[in-house]
Amino acid sequence: MNTTDNTIQGPRGLAGVVVTDTRLGDVRGREGFYHYRQYSAVELAATRGFEDVWHLMFRGALPTGTAERDAFAAEIAPLRRLPEDVRAALPALARASALAGPLAGLRTALSLLGACSGFRPVYDLGPERRAADVLAACAAVPTLLTALHRLGEGLEPVEPRDDLPHAANYLYMLTGQEPDPVRARAVEQYLISTIDHGFNASTFTARVIASTGADVAACLTGAIGALSGPLHGGAPSRALDTLDAIGTADRIDTWIRERVLAGDRIMGFGHPVYRTEDPRSRMLRDIARGFGGPLVDFAVEVERQVEHILAELKPGRELHTNVEFYAGVVMELCGLPREMFTPTFCTARVVGWSANILEQATDSKIIRPAARYTGPSAPQPVPALD
Amino acid sequence: MNTTDNTIQGPRGLAGVVVTDTRLGDVRGREGFYHYRQYSAVELAATRGFEDVWHLMFRGALPTGTAERDAFAAEIAPLRRLPEDVRAALPALARASALAGPLAGLRTALSLLGACSGFRPVYDLGPERRAADVLAACAAVPTLLTALHRLGEGLEPVEPRDDLPHAANYLYMLTGQEPDPVRARAVEQYLISTIDHGFNASTFTARVIASTGADVAACLTGAIGALSGPLHGGAPSRALDTLDAIGTADRIDTWIRERVLAGDRIMGFGHPVYRTEDPRSRMLRDIARGFGGPLVDFAVEVERQVEHILAELKPGRELHTNVEFYAGVVMELCGLPREMFTPTFCTARVVGWSANILEQATDSKIIRPAARYTGPSAPQPVPALD
Repeated sequence: MNTTDNTIQGPRGLAGVVVTDTRLGDVRGREGFYHYRQYSAVELAATRGFEDVWHLMFRGALPTGTAERDAFAAEIAPLRRLPEDVRAALPALARASALAGPLAGLRTALSLLGACSGFRPVYDLGPERRAADVLAACAAVPTLLTALHRLGEGLEPVEPRDDLPHAANYLYMLTGQEPDPVRARAVEQYLISTIDHGFNASTFTARVIASTGADVAACLTGAIGALSGPLHGGAPSRALDTLDAIGTADRIDTWIRERVLAGDRIMGFGHPVYRTEDPRSRMLRDIARGFGGPLVDFAVEVERQVEHILAELKPGRELHTNVEFYAGVVMELCGLPREMFTPTFCTARVVGWSANILEQATDSKIIRPAARYTGPSAPQPVPALD
Repeated sequence: MNTTDNTIQGPRGLAGVVVTDTRLGDVRGREGFYHYRQYSAVELAATRGFEDVWHLMFRGALPTGTAERDAFAAEIAPLRRLPEDVRAALPALARASALAGPLAGLRTALSLLGACSGFRPVYDLGPERRAADVLAACAAVPTLLTALHRLGEGLEPVEPRDDLPHAANYLYMLTGQEPDPVRARAVEQYLISTIDHGFNASTFTARVIASTGADVAACLTGAIGALSGPLHGGAPSRALDTLDAIGTADRIDTWIRERVLAGDRIMGFGHPVYRTEDPRSRMLRDIARGFGGPLVDFAVEVERQVEHILAELKPGRELHTNVEFYAGVVMELCGLPREMFTPTFCTARVVGWSANILEQATDSKIIRPAARYTGPSAPQPVPALD
């Protein structure tokens, strides 16, 4: 495909170009609103469990009752346990994670899990087998991440428990102790709120790979790779690092003004889509306030002063806290180690990616845009090697 | 991003939408011409070695003399050897390959190699370190693929040899025997001709992931995943399977007419871009004719009759042999097992993907298009669980 064929110049980064229809959800940046299918994501997080929303994303509807919810949970529970070849590879994968980061470890582990489980191209599968493969992948992600983390710390992995819900089991496998219900519920609400969020680069990557008909592990491995890119966003630890760097309330004003005047971005503030407060941020602030304590007081004070300074120095820009700001605070309060913040995000987002893969698999058109050649226009003869 | 924000409806699959500029090459489908930078790819395959063209793609110019070529080869040779943690994982990866295919094995192995090698996000690296990472990945791919294949056959992997060029070393590691120069050169010419070919879905995947700033292994893992999709194309074994299915020359006419009238695609014929003969096909036919023998005579006769029948039954469609048709014949003549045809393609294409990653890494804009929500338009209250 080139300049002499029928091409259309796309906007930079394809921003705003609609590549697909979706029934999975919508983000209305100007209204400060986002939903999963026909429901407000924040309302889902306030009223439902993680498995309920997972069911909604995969099967098109919330469980209609506890029996349907329990049946779905019973499908998931055994899939938390890892195949033997994956278990055996964990120590090497943990060493790799220590070198290249937990997402590089997860990318490799999930790729191996898919291959060991004999995942086949989605193009060749019926809906039931596709659904089984994405369920197996999503169920295993918390087990993989916590096992790699513990091995990196010199600890043995903790076997998953069938009787705990998704979020509580994740915390249990991370620490080896059953979490207190308040913390488990806070993490669950955070996870629900991050299952999906419009057409970010990792979701798009999953759909591009799915559009070739490749297997679920191929799609998810690519999505994890995209998420690991520094430009993707979604690193709640950075906002918490900012709180640490400021240190005390009396330093907020000077610290922030210096950074803003130097043209630096303040981590945890601003979003490419929202022009209002990020609805996830509001929810997470409420959860943090429920915990209370000096970190929460400090975060609220930083938010207040930063909003004031940004309104003064960047009038009309509508820069508010994004999801990262209070997500970091909530995860810290729940005892998650900072290097597990992005992996924790990943345990939820993999469900969103998977729902997108299932949706893309129903479309037989490959996603294949074009490039424009801008090198020398006249082909040149190949010179002889001297 | 949604319907109420500023969006543009893209064509289905983003066909023809220019997402980036490139200086790496161009495909002019109507002219039956493609090039790498300013040179005809077929002319490069006819006159140069694989490492020369690899150098062209990575460093922007052909080696100016044998000293520069040898220095590049000397950089590559030690990178063919695998890190210890990757070697140790090979048996498990070979079992996974046997279940899910060689590209699932390669995807996992390359992901592990990148992590074990401590690849860092390209966004955080200077050009030299980026170049080192892509070189290490490309150099290791033939070692990984041949080791996984041999282990799957119950054989020990063969250590790479520093003194052999890329293609000859690949065949050596596959068979354990130094290949005869004619076969090694035929495979080298095939490999050169498949390094790059415009903006296919795997190349696009590599660039989307690279646009997030992720590490080279993340980008390549995603590209391998996309290549593994049945809709991606690039499976030269399918064309050879067609020759087998036809069987004898007297059956060609009936067999082909039945398939065409049933609306089936004839594998090895037709291309989404070319309206002329695929220039790679012409080159590979010449190479095959150099070998001669009954398979070549049969393939030439099938081509002649199919072109005749397609011109009669589908007038004006300009359906000719594509790269898969004679690529399969050439690889068969060179003794490559059929299940290694697509992996062999991959040993070359990884160089093209990598060149695209290096080019994308110089652009700081993330590739992030939009989706259009088409579910229920009015948000609904979340129902209580019964």
